[in-house]
Amino acid sequence: MKLWPHCFPCYDDGDRGNRFCAASDFSNDLLPSLGATAQQPPKLRKYLVSPYDPRYKVWEKFLILLVVYSAWICPLEFAFLRYLPRAPFVVDDVVNGFFAVDIMLTFFVAFVDKKSHHLVNDRKKIAVRYLSSWFVFDVCSTVPFHSISLLFNKHEHDFGFKFLNVLRLWRLRRVSSLLEKDIRFNYAVIRCTKLISVTLFAIHCAGCINYLIADRYPDPKRTWIGAVMPNFREDGLWIRYVTAMYWSITTLTTTGYGDLHAENAREMLFGICYMLFNLWLTAYLIGNMTNLVVHSTSRTRDFRDVIQAASEFAARNQLPRQIEDQMLNHICLRYKTEGLKQQETLDMLPKAMRSSISHYLFFRVVQGAYLFKGVSARFIQQLVTEMQAEYFAPKEDIILQNDSPSDLYLLVSGAVDILAFLDEAEQVCGRAAEGELLGEIGIMCNKPQPFTFRTTKLSQILRISRSRLLGIIQENREDGEIIRSNLQLVNV
Amino acid sequence: MKLWPHCFPCYDDGDRGNRFCAASDFSNDLLPSLGATAQQPPKLRKYLVSPYDPRYKVWEKFLILLVVYSAWICPLEFAFLRYLPRAPFVVDDVVNGFFAVDIMLTFFVAFVDKKSHHLVNDRKKIAVRYLSSWFVFDVCSTVPFHSISLLFNKHEHDFGFKFLNVLRLWRLRRVSSLLEKDIRFNYAVIRCTKLISVTLFAIHCAGCINYLIADRYPDPKRTWIGAVMPNFREDGLWIRYVTAMYWSITTLTTTGYGDLHAENAREMLFGICYMLFNLWLTAYLIGNMTNLVVHSTSRTRDFRDVIQAASEFAARNQLPRQIEDQMLNHICLRYKTEGLKQQETLDMLPKAMRSSISHYLFFRVVQGAYLFKGVSARFIQQLVTEMQAEYFAPKEDIILQNDSPSDLYLLVSGAVDILAFLDEAEQVCGRAAEGELLGEIGIMCNKPQPFTFRTTKLSQILRISRSRLLGIIQENREDGEIIRSNLQLVNV
Amino acid sequence: MKLWPHCFPCYDDGDRGNRFCAASDFSNDLLPSLGATAQQPPKLRKYLVSPYDPRYKVWEKFLILLVVYSAWICPLEFAFLRYLPRAPFVVDDVVNGFFAVDIMLTFFVAFVDKKSHHLVNDRKKIAVRYLSSWFVFDVCSTVPFHSISLLFNKHEHDFGFKFLNVLRLWRLRRVSSLLEKDIRFNYAVIRCTKLISVTLFAIHCAGCINYLIADRYPDPKRTWIGAVMPNFREDGLWIRYVTAMYWSITTLTTTGYGDLHAENAREMLFGICYMLFNLWLTAYLIGNMTNLVVHSTSRTRDFRDVIQAASEFAARNQLPRQIEDQMLNHICLRYKTEGLKQQETLDMLPKAMRSSISHYLFFRVVQGAYLFKGVSARFIQQLVTEMQAEYFAPKEDIILQNDSPSDLYLLVSGAVDILAFLDEAEQVCGRAAEGELLGEIGIMCNKPQPFTFRTTKLSQILRISRSRLLGIIQENREDGEIIRSNLQLVNV
Amino acid sequence: MKLWPHCFPCYDDGDRGNRFCAASDFSNDLLPSLGATAQQPPKLRKYLVSPYDPRYKVWEKFLILLVVYSAWICPLEFAFLRYLPRAPFVVDDVVNGFFAVDIMLTFFVAFVDKKSHHLVNDRKKIAVRYLSSWFVFDVCSTVPFHSISLLFNKHEHDFGFKFLNVLRLWRLRRVSSLLEKDIRFNYAVIRCTKLISVTLFAIHCAGCINYLIADRYPDPKRTWIGAVMPNFREDGLWIRYVTAMYWSITTLTTTGYGDLHAENAREMLFGICYMLFNLWLTAYLIGNMTNLVVHSTSRTRDFRDVIQAASEFAARNQLPRQIEDQMLNHICLRYKTEGLKQQETLDMLPKAMRSSISHYLFFRVVQGAYLFKGVSARFIQQLVTEMQAEYFAPKEDIILQNDSPSDLYLLVSGAVDILAFLDEAEQVCGRAAEGELLGEIGIMCNKPQPFTFRTTKLSQILRISRSRLLGIIQENREDGEIIRSNLQLVNV
Repeated sequence: MKLWPHCFPCYDDGDRGNRFCAASDFSNDLLPSLGATAQQPPKLRKYLVSPYDPRYKVWEKFLILLVVYSAWICPLEFAFLRYLPRAPFVVDDVVNGFFAVDIMLTFFVAFVDKKSHHLVNDRKKIAVRYLSSWFVFDVCSTVPFHSISLLFNKHEHDFGFKFLNVLRLWRLRRVSSLLEKDIRFNYAVIRCTKLISVTLFAIHCAGCINYLIADRYPDPKRTWIGAVMPNFREDGLWIRYVTAMYWSITTLTTTGYGDLHAENAREMLFGICYMLFNLWLTAYLIGNMTNLVVHSTSRTRDFRDVIQAASEFAARNQLPRQIEDQMLNHICLRYKTEGLKQQETLDMLPKAMRSSISHYLFFRVVQGAYLFKGVSARFIQQLVTEMQAEYFAPKEDIILQNDSPSDLYLLVSGAVDILAFLDEAEQVCGRAAEGELLGEIGIMCNKPQPFTFRTTKLSQILRISRSRLLGIIQENREDGEIIRSNLQLVNV
Repeated sequence: MKLWPHCFPCYDDGDRGNRFCAASDFSNDLLPSLGATAQQPPKLRKYLVSPYDPRYKVWEKFLILLVVYSAWICPLEFAFLRYLPRAPFVVDDVVNGFFAVDIMLTFFVAFVDKKSHHLVNDRKKIAVRYLSSWFVFDVCSTVPFHSISLLFNKHEHDFGFKFLNVLRLWRLRRVSSLLEKDIRFNYAVIRCTKLISVTLFAIHCAGCINYLIADRYPDPKRTWIGAVMPNFREDGLWIRYVTAMYWSITTLTTTGYGDLHAENAREMLFGICYMLFNLWLTAYLIGNMTNLVVHSTSRTRDFRDVIQAASEFAARNQLPRQIEDQMLNHICLRYKTEGLKQQETLDMLPKAMRSSISHYLFFRVVQGAYLFKGVSARFIQQLVTEMQAEYFAPKEDIILQNDSPSDLYLLVSGAVDILAFLDEAEQVCGRAAEGELLGEIGIMCNKPQPFTFRTTKLSQILRISRSRLLGIIQENREDGEIIRSNLQLVNV
Repeated sequence: MKLWPHCFPCYDDGDRGNRFCAASDFSNDLLPSLGATAQQPPKLRKYLVSPYDPRYKVWEKFLILLVVYSAWICPLEFAFLRYLPRAPFVVDDVVNGFFAVDIMLTFFVAFVDKKSHHLVNDRKKIAVRYLSSWFVFDVCSTVPFHSISLLFNKHEHDFGFKFLNVLRLWRLRRVSSLLEKDIRFNYAVIRCTKLISVTLFAIHCAGCINYLIADRYPDPKRTWIGAVMPNFREDGLWIRYVTAMYWSITTLTTTGYGDLHAENAREMLFGICYMLFNLWLTAYLIGNMTNLVVHSTSRTRDFRDVIQAASEFAARNQLPRQIEDQMLNHICLRYKTEGLKQQETLDMLPKAMRSSISHYLFFRVVQGAYLFKGVSARFIQQLVTEMQAEYFAPKEDIILQNDSPSDLYLLVSGAVDILAFLDEAEQVCGRAAEGELLGEIGIMCNKPQPFTFRTTKLSQILRISRSRLLGIIQENREDGEIIRSNLQLVNV
Repeated sequence: MKLWPHCFPCYDDGDRGNRFCAASDFSNDLLPSLGATAQQPPKLRKYLVSPYDPRYKVWEKFLILLVVYSAWICPLEFAFLRYLPRAPFVVDDVVNGFFAVDIMLTFFVAFVDKKSHHLVNDRKKIAVRYLSSWFVFDVCSTVPFHSISLLFNKHEHDFGFKFLNVLRLWRLRRVSSLLEKDIRFNYAVIRCTKLISVTLFAIHCAGCINYLIADRYPDPKRTWIGAVMPNFREDGLWIRYVTAMYWSITTLTTTGYGDLHAENAREMLFGICYMLFNLWLTAYLIGNMTNLVVHSTSRTRDFRDVIQAASEFAARNQLPRQIEDQMLNHICLRYKTEGLKQQETLDMLPKAMRSSISHYLFFRVVQGAYLFKGVSARFIQQLVTEMQAEYFAPKEDIILQNDSPSDLYLLVSGAVDILAFLDEAEQVCGRAAEGELLGEIGIMCNKPQPFTFRTTKLSQILRISRSRLLGIIQENREDGEIIRSNLQLVNV
């Protein structure tokens, strides 16, 4: 099934990919509309490529590398390398070639309609959509104006053509969407990577553009860089680049030392634009950071609140030491188990899947309990589906003597003491080992629990509510008889 | 019904507007108070205008254009254009004329009482409310003091009168409320637009005021602009405006290069006020950005958490590969469908509307199922009302063999394999096509499911719980008989 | 009851206060601990004052005025007024007098133990608590060291004594707690007021301290202010104060022009401390702003999401125009009514209070319905308690023909058309006026609804579920008989 | 049980520790995996140390002190103390010795596998894990390169060796994890402490490194510090350190006065790195602050909203003054009690623990009620388990006359008036004292409540729902008989 590639784009090429490529159909990951209007999944027409085709995805990833390359090189070339020979531009032309191929290809790639979530594979619609949206930008960003101008030896239009090259940055739109979907990486990591990239790219671009403005200004002394480095055009590339970056980041972080600052109207205008952009970038960075911080600390914070509330509750109502300890113990354990999100994960699954998992995990344990010796597999399967696993901290009461019976417990691991009040004092009557049932007499005979059950170690128990248990027994009368005889055999 | 214009103010003039203008009554969108105190909707008196009248709304939009114009021009005029001839002020007088008309009009527009949500259409109350709230400001901001002063040729009061013109900014209060309600635009887009506008306007105003302070200062050398541009009064308007904006944004973003800074007490005082304002504006920008970021990323973040929890759950309990895949598949699909918010939307609607939608979507599919051949339309309508649509990923179990029956499923689209354990191995017994029922034998005969049903493609099924189904059958005995005979016809 | 003064401290002196001062007992607003450990509310001992005594509250408010006065004057005096004559210090001594009285008084004011929430009125405990916590600070901040030093004419210790006066700022701790509890003001307003006060106070203090450091520095040229204003000590108080404030806010907002900056190690050290503080203050401001923004925009944001989801749902499933309009209409109305939070407010109240309100609001309307003519008041009271008020937008279906009956509706206001499918087309059979019941035949005879009910105006209806209605009828057999005969009288 | 040490690491050495050290087993705090795969807790092998061993924890805390020491001293030494004699480095060597011991020790400390949460105590696995992760860093940060170089008298490699010393900062990773778990401190306090530490450390390090760069630069005049203090190398350590810190914090807070700024490419490069880091640190600080602010203000904010909604509800529906007062009273009380989180704490606990607490708190009160005189302890225990404690504000109705009975109330503390409508007016019929039952006649005889019960003071009541009470009576027939005769004895 091709649902996977979309959700887990990276599993395609790894070891897992193979397991999923069998009887799959490209359109399966498109949800049909509800009910009566459901239609047959469309077939891809000839020569069209699915956007989920693994080969197309590899091509997209390759393009992203090229995009990153040209995004970083393009401003640098534009600002600092104006007097260089043609050589480095050969690489540019090759890169442009790949993008030209991509423009061609786009006419053959089906797309998913945003409104209906259906895959559109009509070639006319694909062409219309592309031509009416991104086509012009893509073409403008790909035509090698620079090389064309060199052919004609018309150097006077050089600047204008170079400016069109800046349109290559347009390609960056591809990078964003792909990163977000990849689940191999942690959410915070991807988010931070994206933000750092954007920040660095903004600094790089702004530095280059600001240098360019100074470089082209008629009076070099009245530029931001010329005011402190009068002969800056003779200085090395490295020192000029570092100075430009230094100005750029000083402005972006709003440090604004003022040692480098705008000297003429052009620079002021660029500074105004850059600072406006910075205002939003900074706010966006902080917004994202807040989001990550709030999300990552919420559990610890809630745990603290709960512990504090429990301590205060105990102090306020002068609860005995023993109960307070049990409470705090229990909350600590609960916090730990909730961190594993086991119950939430199970609750999210449909009934059949939950049954499979319960069957896999608990069938053998439940089958081993003396009460269920000899009952049908069907009965036990129905039983485990309704069971819930719980952890109990040491010295915690599972069942209290004289309470009305509401649940049946099965001790999976750990150890439990059986206690009873005799002669006004609590006395240990026995010890339940792993695999034993707790409270079955109360449940089956419908009388108050005769014993208190208290853990001595961290214990894992399975719990099933009385009403559900009786419901299952009622539906399987024969198994009910076996259980009743098992009960009498042991307890009489 | 005129509820619409209020919620969707823009639908008024578009194509939809017409459909709603029929039997509508202006006061319908005012909620009556609960129960016994409900009263008759009031009728609009003669000559009064409803605030929801489409013509009044067009007028309001036109005024907003004028407001924006005067908000931008007014500070500019005030600071930079002091020596200009009267010509441009003619436009001002025309604008003022429109606002004068609006002041008149306001006495005839009914208003909604904030406390009771009732429409007040008593002319006295309208007048009292307006006179006691905004009237004075509106008049002060409209009287063309400048032109009046020119009539009297008393130039010495020029500055004071100009200051009164600043009151025109008061009109900006109109802009805010209207934007927010328009649902044609995305929430984030509107929010960002508003914030950018406020930022730009603050920069513009502060720049103008700061220039004004320097311009009127007796010693031009000891002003923030005069310190670096000694003869700034002779410079062009453009360079002075850009410099003022540059100072303004340098201060707003807290970059503070220091190349332009306050030189005298007046400028310091204005700087203090502006920086205090900036502190709050910046905090407000960041607050809004955080809000948008947190809101827009919450779904992706939660999905990541869930996927991670499921993977860890599988690893921790050493679940077999097949179950783990099913789990992750299911969660991916669930994330996708939840993104569509179909169930939430349905749950929000009242029962009758939900019935209409279910009837429209599912009636035909359910009618086609063999079990419901020949039953009354009334029965099927009651059935579809209780049905829920669900998606199942490929290779997911819908029903597990031997489970107790709890729901009846109807396959709407996709394909399902029927499996059974024979000789200790799972074997495919058949294949359910679209429109077939799953698990009906278990439900109707009340015995454990005889087969496992597993999807082979992405499938959409309708689910109805056993108890609800039996409830409906019980209420419609004759239809119950037909169903029973249908069941026997096919399965015996 | 004196619970009120604590929650609504302002109601004390207003018109409402009188209604609550009757049979009240000071200790009522202290929650007893749960269950068995509950004890008698303690009586206040002689000469002790309750912290909730209205006269003590007035005294506290008066002190706050003094605190604010001394907080603003004290740094100013300390930094700028060093060469002034004794005169203004007389005011200081009077203020100190009041604080001395307050120190005395504190020994007679009972306090609430934070752990147990009990009021402690043992005089020893009060003294011990005060002596071991704030006593020393309070005394130090009150002793008029300055006046004492003047008595002894020892001017050399002047500086040290003045420094002790700074301890008066300690009194500010009183301001914070009182503001927060007052519900007369909007939450956002109070929060903003507090933040602005703190910001202004921080700016004021830092400016004064920084000036002080410069003023005492041996070499006036090597100070932050002396570097730009060489003879600053001769300048007027106003210009010095403005300059200090300007430096202070330039630093706080991190604008940092650099025209005024630290020149020696002392100033650098103070700058380090101030900037560290600013880092936290700014973060705190932004945190609070984010909090307010997120809170205030959440409803609008959610509404937008819901509207968008509903539109997409309709488009995706190709729902007919009529149903889509109904959906959007309903959601708009729902958003409006939810804004009033009527249901949430009712749900929060205990059952008896809910009954009172329902009785007050709905009793008369329900009594007027033909079905309940002649039934006992007790029956109607039980009925209204279970009723829920709902609003329906115009053209919305309340009941759908052939649906199974689940609720009984009573039209309170608005108008409803009664429709039925005759000859394959929907035809209007009648019109229900205000006060009429909808769907009572379906409910009472337990058969599918014979008619569709559709609103024509915005309508308010009362809804009671069938099971609850039948439950109440079953408990009041005689009333049930009356209802049945009423039903037959009208419908047969 | 050793669950405690992990959750409450500090309780180990305190007075509580002893109570928990008895029959404990180190592996108890590791959760076994669910169900069938549960295995025996592993035993620690010989010579291996548990990471939860209290002695190991003390050792870890001791190391943290050393880490903090070397983190602060190391940059200082590196930057400012280059010409000092060997003496102070002796301390360094001792510190290094302790860290060498720790490296040895780590090979003998078991660790918890992150994926499975199992404790790994295979010595090979421990070694492999350490060698493949942190070993190299730990060794590099511990070898006393400086002392080694001195032995060989090769001063030319001095700088490189010193740089390796910076690796000692690596040890800081230990500090973070330990702080977070300690519940003795408030969450906000710990969080703030951590953030302040990180901020101060960043400032310290950046200042030292920036000074170092200036110190090693060939031309002292062209350094950030040399430009304003030409002979800075001759100045005292104190003034140089303060200047470095001043630059550092001016940059970190983005104040950027510009009086000290980068003068050469090296400094610019470092400035770029530091400012990038600052951007993230500032965003992180703000994010944390927002988190704390939002969390700490949410309750007050919600309370305000609720009060406002209730007031508006009352105004909108013209509720009588008395009901409005009751509503506001109730909401105030509710806000107060919710602050104690008593119900949430109870709900979080398992049934047996809840029973214990209820038994402890309420048993005696319930036993004293006349209706339960003579019933078995078992009956009362089952009763108290189902009871809920509630607070009622003064003048609030608990039960309304004629309402259908749904709950039985027991007055624990406070006072209640019994009212009835006689001759169209409410008249006081009696007064219920503490320990009395309210509404028992309605419940037991199943007829509408004959009286209204209204509190006169703040009252605490226990509530049990009718259905649960009848359920318990049905299960204990003999006790039911006693109750019935008790009822007749009093009320007939």
